[in-house]
Amino acid sequence: MTDRAERPLRPERVLALCGGIGGAKLALGLTRVLEPDRLTVLVNTGDDFEHLGLTICPDIDTVTYTLAGLSDRKRGWGLAGESWGFLEALGRLGGETWFMLGDRDLATHVHRTQRLREGSTLSEVTAEIARSLGIRARLMPASDDPVRTIVQTEEGPLPFQTYFVARRCAPVLTGLTFAGAQTARMPADLPGLLADEDLATILICPSNPYLSIDPILAIPGLRAALRRAAAPVVAVSPVVAGKAVKGPTAKIMAELGLPVSTQAVAAHYGDLLDGMVLDAADAAEAPRLGLPSLVTNTVMTSLSDREDLARAALDLAATLPRRPL
Amino acid sequence: MTDRAERPLRPERVLALCGGIGGAKLALGLTRVLEPDRLTVLVNTGDDFEHLGLTICPDIDTVTYTLAGLSDRKRGWGLAGESWGFLEALGRLGGETWFMLGDRDLATHVHRTQRLREGSTLSEVTAEIARSLGIRARLMPASDDPVRTIVQTEEGPLPFQTYFVARRCAPVLTGLTFAGAQTARMPADLPGLLADEDLATILICPSNPYLSIDPILAIPGLRAALRRAAAPVVAVSPVVAGKAVKGPTAKIMAELGLPVSTQAVAAHYGDLLDGMVLDAADAAEAPRLGLPSLVTNTVMTSLSDREDLARAALDLAATLPRRPL
Repeated sequence: MTDRAERPLRPERVLALCGGIGGAKLALGLTRVLEPDRLTVLVNTGDDFEHLGLTICPDIDTVTYTLAGLSDRKRGWGLAGESWGFLEALGRLGGETWFMLGDRDLATHVHRTQRLREGSTLSEVTAEIARSLGIRARLMPASDDPVRTIVQTEEGPLPFQTYFVARRCAPVLTGLTFAGAQTARMPADLPGLLADEDLATILICPSNPYLSIDPILAIPGLRAALRRAAAPVVAVSPVVAGKAVKGPTAKIMAELGLPVSTQAVAAHYGDLLDGMVLDAADAAEAPRLGLPSLVTNTVMTSLSDREDLARAALDLAATLPRRPL
Repeated sequence: MTDRAERPLRPERVLALCGGIGGAKLALGLTRVLEPDRLTVLVNTGDDFEHLGLTICPDIDTVTYTLAGLSDRKRGWGLAGESWGFLEALGRLGGETWFMLGDRDLATHVHRTQRLREGSTLSEVTAEIARSLGIRARLMPASDDPVRTIVQTEEGPLPFQTYFVARRCAPVLTGLTFAGAQTARMPADLPGLLADEDLATILICPSNPYLSIDPILAIPGLRAALRRAAAPVVAVSPVVAGKAVKGPTAKIMAELGLPVSTQAVAAHYGDLLDGMVLDAADAAEAPRLGLPSLVTNTVMTSLSDREDLARAALDLAATLPRRPL
């Protein structure tokens, strides 16, 4: 980490769209190459659900814990040094234990649920929690209104967490719907950020395009607002050498009849994109993307991998023209 | 515990009214001298409160954990082998940490709150939890309707847990009210139990008469129903040698201008009582109680103390005439 002092922190504002683990890694890299406060992370809420009477927001929590330096690096989700007394005792009472809730993690859910019941918005609670944990970047839920991903499968529709956790993504996916998205409103502060001259880059993190980014883009007007912004939109491909770095992206793409490639991801995002960062393993795909690209290592193992990828994505964006307003 | 096998379990039915720690000790003794299923414990709900969006029932939980053999013997409340990760993390988020909630204990509150929100009654949830933990005695909340003890103090009215936990009983008490008691209904199964020929004894445990037993007796018709039952009512004095064995009983009696004595406790219960068990240290008070009494050791340190006191109370009741129906 000594190299941090050698490189000046970048002053531009950046908006990053992300889901959970993969996106959080890049968001962490961004917080380390940008001036504090210059990063806004627009986080997927499609994975959110009500469980045991609590409102649980897995992606917001993963990003929060990651940026606070509190996440469990091995698992990727949840808090480091976690204990499981609650879940053990809940099992003894015959309660539902299929969704892993650590004792410390639970404080987040109980606190958030209480604040929401008291009338706070998800944005407000998310900001409060981030502030409590010393995070200087801004975490912005994709909407304060509930958006819930429903996975259409050969067995019928499944709520996201049932599909993802309880069923471990086993059912064959046939499509996705986002309940509530049609009437959900984008964050009140998003248009102002998109109109800010200092906003240099809109970054789509290497999250699952279908499960993590699409629920964000499904919010009415949000995709169009991103496209209208002057800042170029750059995506980091979540696919490396025909595989997803993490999670079910590859399985889902195959089930949707798509090639598991960066090209297919670029095609999925379509005219939203101005540029793409892809892995060196897929360098051959670059000319076929039909848009400016940058080839680098996109597999984030170390902290400096995260910083390097963040810099690379911002560097690519810096070469792209700002769109006329 | 070898003596258990030597003594046959008593077959009679017993109803015990109790609050938290002291009452739970005697209730545990009763479960060990009676046939399983023959004990019903009518538990104070005046200490219950809403906290962090959860319905917390401290006395029900103390009795539950004690009868399940899971309670922390040293603290008296909560679960043995408890951890505190939740509370630590909640504090980090700026949440309210004045009420101690262990990680395992929290499962009870989350599970109960969820079941109540789903439409179950407190009686149902309490019975479910007791069953899950292997308890064969019946735990009966004093009411399914909320009754909340309000402590009138020189500083004004305080919700019970604010007075008891946050303020550690420091404010001078001037009186007590039981919010909700006027419209609360007694348990649906209580009249049937009181009319049961097998009901041999109604026992008032050595709980705080003002804070733990009065909220039960404040439920309309409940005191009269106890008085109408054929089974004699026997109280075990919570006062020993001018002091309370545990908790603020003595302080409260002094603040109410009462002598801290078994006689004052007997006078408080008045015509509800048919007999009283008091400690050997207070043997001199026995003739002045104006009702049949039994003098024994009432300080429950060991498990056999609990069993001995339970037997003594039932023995006294067995000498008393059943009331005509």
